[in-house]
Amino acid sequence: MTDYAWSVDLPVTHDVAIERATAALAAQGFGVLTRIDVHEVLARKIGVQRDPYVILGACNPNFAHQVLQAEPAMGILLPCNVVVEARGRASRVWITRPEALFTLTGRDDVAPVAAEVSRRLEAVAEALRGVEA
Amino acid sequence: MTDYAWSVDLPVTHDVAIERATAALAAQGFGVLTRIDVHEVLARKIGVQRDPYVILGACNPNFAHQVLQAEPAMGILLPCNVVVEARGRASRVWITRPEALFTLTGRDDVAPVAAEVSRRLEAVAEALRGVEA
Repeated sequence: MTDYAWSVDLPVTHDVAIERATAALAAQGFGVLTRIDVHEVLARKIGVQRDPYVILGACNPNFAHQVLQAEPAMGILLPCNVVVEARGRASRVWITRPEALFTLTGRDDVAPVAAEVSRRLEAVAEALRGVEA
Repeated sequence: MTDYAWSVDLPVTHDVAIERATAALAAQGFGVLTRIDVHEVLARKIGVQRDPYVILGACNPNFAHQVLQAEPAMGILLPCNVVVEARGRASRVWITRPEALFTLTGRDDVAPVAAEVSRRLEAVAEALRGVEA
């Protein structure tokens, strides 16, 4: 647990954890717009080997639109990342806590949107805590 | 200008601004790993029309590796976004200020990496300030 992310350990393989995270996001209205296979990028670019590590970029278009209407610079803080790391035959997932990130903006008007997005992403974390082997 | 991004106005069209930003990032060792055409996502998903607005996900693999070695949760804060918005026949670019984002981690050990990445991304902003019509 950190200030900027929730973390959940899942007793399933990396590929399955990505599927479950994607489904849990969809249930809360978030599509996955981007995927970075970081382990592949590091292997290809700098020859570093590491366990599978994927960054998914999740977005709820209604909330994204509200945030960008308030201030176009806030695209810097989008999408909301969900990270899935392999830990042997299990996996760890981190989910962005938007309330933490949006404190950087110093904008009270987007705080309610960030709070609602946080509520939904915390529900994603909760759903993943229920995943069984 | 915000705490979390530098902004630069460019006297060139959106497509050209994206090309210039990509080239300026490459000159500082950053590849573009992701691209979200936000205006297309919003039009398709919720029927909202807005001016072209693209989020590029930029990554320097050496610095990303250092950050993830220090703490795997920090993938939540990667890649560094560069946003390009059309403003009529001109464009505005915002570039992530990693020092601001990484204050959220409360980790002094990654501060030097964040400072170096910030130095390079500020050089990207500086290069874009020199773009002429």
